[in-house]
Amino acid sequence: MSKKRLSGISTEAPKKFDKEVIKAATTEILKELDELQNLLYAEHKWSVLVVLQGMDASGKDGAIRNVFSPLNPLGVKVQPFKAPTAEEASHDFLWRIHQHVPAKGMIQIFNRSHYEDVLIQRVHKWIDEKTVRQRMRSINDFERLLADNNTVVLKFYLHISKEAQLQRLTERTEDPRKMWKYNDKDLAEAKLWKKYMEAYEDVFQECNRIPWIIVPSDNNWFKEYIIAKTLRDALKELKMKYPALPK
Amino acid sequence: MSKKRLSGISTEAPKKFDKEVIKAATTEILKELDELQNLLYAEHKWSVLVVLQGMDASGKDGAIRNVFSPLNPLGVKVQPFKAPTAEEASHDFLWRIHQHVPAKGMIQIFNRSHYEDVLIQRVHKWIDEKTVRQRMRSINDFERLLADNNTVVLKFYLHISKEAQLQRLTERTEDPRKMWKYNDKDLAEAKLWKKYMEAYEDVFQECNRIPWIIVPSDNNWFKEYIIAKTLRDALKELKMKYPALPK
Repeated sequence: MSKKRLSGISTEAPKKFDKEVIKAATTEILKELDELQNLLYAEHKWSVLVVLQGMDASGKDGAIRNVFSPLNPLGVKVQPFKAPTAEEASHDFLWRIHQHVPAKGMIQIFNRSHYEDVLIQRVHKWIDEKTVRQRMRSINDFERLLADNNTVVLKFYLHISKEAQLQRLTERTEDPRKMWKYNDKDLAEAKLWKKYMEAYEDVFQECNRIPWIIVPSDNNWFKEYIIAKTLRDALKELKMKYPALPK
Repeated sequence: MSKKRLSGISTEAPKKFDKEVIKAATTEILKELDELQNLLYAEHKWSVLVVLQGMDASGKDGAIRNVFSPLNPLGVKVQPFKAPTAEEASHDFLWRIHQHVPAKGMIQIFNRSHYEDVLIQRVHKWIDEKTVRQRMRSINDFERLLADNNTVVLKFYLHISKEAQLQRLTERTEDPRKMWKYNDKDLAEAKLWKKYMEAYEDVFQECNRIPWIIVPSDNNWFKEYIIAKTLRDALKELKMKYPALPK
């Protein structure tokens, strides 16, 4: 398989999609999701892990707010992964991740994930290439364990352009409601854009047993539609049923 | 590789070993272990996972008391694994296990382990054979992850005879200091002896990337010697060094 180049994939919504039509469709999908989540929780057979990856300002937080907040919070958990604590760094990289995988009936969202351990850590050369390969293999093993245990794993890469990122990062310095998100390290990270793209392309190739979904994310309305639709379709495929009364 | 038959391996100390000589040797090894553990903790580079498996009354608790209690408890943790709770059973079988793997510098003892998920669960047919194979593969993947992260995994099977077991279980009904260990399910389990032996033999064959150490355990003094010696030898091989002052 030849490697997928992110530069060859548009970050914008395809022209054939109309913003207002899609927003209305998303609203309908969210209603369906509400019912499907209830069924997921009641049946207690499957679980869902949603992995959100993307560059700074690619819209991970917005996706969580707009797609998942209409759902019953009893059945949805969000876990952000930031730089490891000293205790986390004293264990293998999947130790802290594994603790947060969803129980049966639950939808778990990872805001960043175990993939950072082969992205930021690799781009900054905090780990050597042998460790990168070991970790990629461990990720594949780990995701198979989850799949064996009836966990549906949906991995989204929120694909934005370098220009869209720069604009959004600049907004954080100007809009009082966004300043709290400003981090002066973000601009330094943004300069590593090309290295991050290469690291992501490698991830899509090497950790693809459970396939990645690349979401054009310059337009939030399109991004939210794709995530909601993918989740809805995945849940429908499970052919879930409400349990009857115990005999 | 032809399958190892437990019935062909003696459960007794080999004749050439003298009880008093061996007990004195164990005492010396425990002193060495005290120093080696201190080094392990100080260097903060490696960790050790000791897995203790064996039939009821094979002497797992005694091994923990006699081999590990002389060590500094700051650096040693013991985790018993019993029947999974409802929350544990709502996750993959390695979820609860992974939480207790040792941090760098630590020795972690598992009193029973993830292997029960392919032993008791298999013998009682609570899981199908496809799940047994999946789990064995997951165990191999998991142990490789630990090894990749500088964890030395020592897996001991405490090998006792059916007769020794029966005698020890009977003692629990007669000795007031042992009655607390009595469980009327143990005798029912003991009747499944042959099935357990077959399940163990399969484990030794299929989950042997990190090799099993089969410890003749009818004689406690010999069992303790083998465990202490194996741990001492494994720690010495690490060629650990006390860290110098930071520059």
